[in-house]
Amino acid sequence: MGIVRLSISMSLDGYVAGPDQGLEQPLGAGGEKLHEWAVATRTFRALHGGEGGETGVDDERAAAILGGVGATIMGRNMFGPVRGPWAEPAWSGWWGDEPPYRSPVFVLTHHPRAPLTLGRTTFHFVTDGIEAALERARAAAGDADVSIGGGAATARQYLRAGLVDEVELHVAPVLLGAGERLLEDLGDGARDLEAAGIVSSPAAAHVRLARGAA
Amino acid sequence: MGIVRLSISMSLDGYVAGPDQGLEQPLGAGGEKLHEWAVATRTFRALHGGEGGETGVDDERAAAILGGVGATIMGRNMFGPVRGPWAEPAWSGWWGDEPPYRSPVFVLTHHPRAPLTLGRTTFHFVTDGIEAALERARAAAGDADVSIGGGAATARQYLRAGLVDEVELHVAPVLLGAGERLLEDLGDGARDLEAAGIVSSPAAAHVRLARGAA
Repeated sequence: MGIVRLSISMSLDGYVAGPDQGLEQPLGAGGEKLHEWAVATRTFRALHGGEGGETGVDDERAAAILGGVGATIMGRNMFGPVRGPWAEPAWSGWWGDEPPYRSPVFVLTHHPRAPLTLGRTTFHFVTDGIEAALERARAAAGDADVSIGGGAATARQYLRAGLVDEVELHVAPVLLGAGERLLEDLGDGARDLEAAGIVSSPAAAHVRLARGAA
Repeated sequence: MGIVRLSISMSLDGYVAGPDQGLEQPLGAGGEKLHEWAVATRTFRALHGGEGGETGVDDERAAAILGGVGATIMGRNMFGPVRGPWAEPAWSGWWGDEPPYRSPVFVLTHHPRAPLTLGRTTFHFVTDGIEAALERARAAAGDADVSIGGGAATARQYLRAGLVDEVELHVAPVLLGAGERLLEDLGDGARDLEAAGIVSSPAAAHVRLARGAA
């Protein structure tokens, strides 16, 4: 059985999204700065149908995000805007016809909806909570890993419940000043996550924690 | 004229001290984990009269903390425990007979006190605010830099006032879960601090920001 992993970009002041998230700016004000390190990589460009891009440490970490992942779990705010048409059958995510996941995605929501297949990715809508979603994702992933795709609230729920085996924070050297924090109110759920390696480029520090790593 | 620098160790979840700081645990619960990267270095050991220690990235960043510094400013909580005998003439800091600063230190306080010289360091007690302390520190430093030595509240005041030219965060791969945050409520004071470099070891990510670096 694979592990449960969380990989997420965070500002130096701890925000994983800027303030005022919505349809116009899904990452919040300034939130795109968190992802500059990734967008510049060859892996990211290839995933989105582009060419070129940087290789090196950032590219290796970008490749690791989806490498070995057999299923992804995300919150409804990551699938669609907080205020918007996301629950309508018309809303089909942010990613166009070929989402980068290319394995089953389980979307946590209170609104039942039939599965949605786009390219090589099928989105399943799960209405019975984080543990049920994890069970389905594990079954879908088989021996591969389950990735907690975000956003912050969903990631925090899994961390708080002690269900995440490995965390990689991609710390961008920017101060957002406001937004949504990831690493707070985790209770004991994150207590046994220990240092498991750091690599960096001028664009990001990639800090890994793992359960009982030391 | 030199610049004003802040160099401080921070947990991955943004705390620069653990909870429950006091005479018994000046860094708060778990706070010593923030400084493990530094304590292991040759520079730190040499400063505290020891031998050996690690060289490499962490040692270079440890050496940079005091290198080129002509004066240091610190808050009263960094000079002495929040609840304790610090204001008494008997309290002479945490550092013993030879504090590591070896240049003038200006301690922000509401309690006037005569200067205190220990080894090569003289502590001056400044009662008229952060700008007056900076003016005196600049005069003492001459062409060298002024270092904001901490703790969190003092560092935050200088950041908020837009008086810090360069910040280096030493991000330790640990989650403290609670304590004192540095990077919050900074208003516009930190707005023009931009990425100026990242280096890392498995023990810490050293992230630098500088005024108008880009």
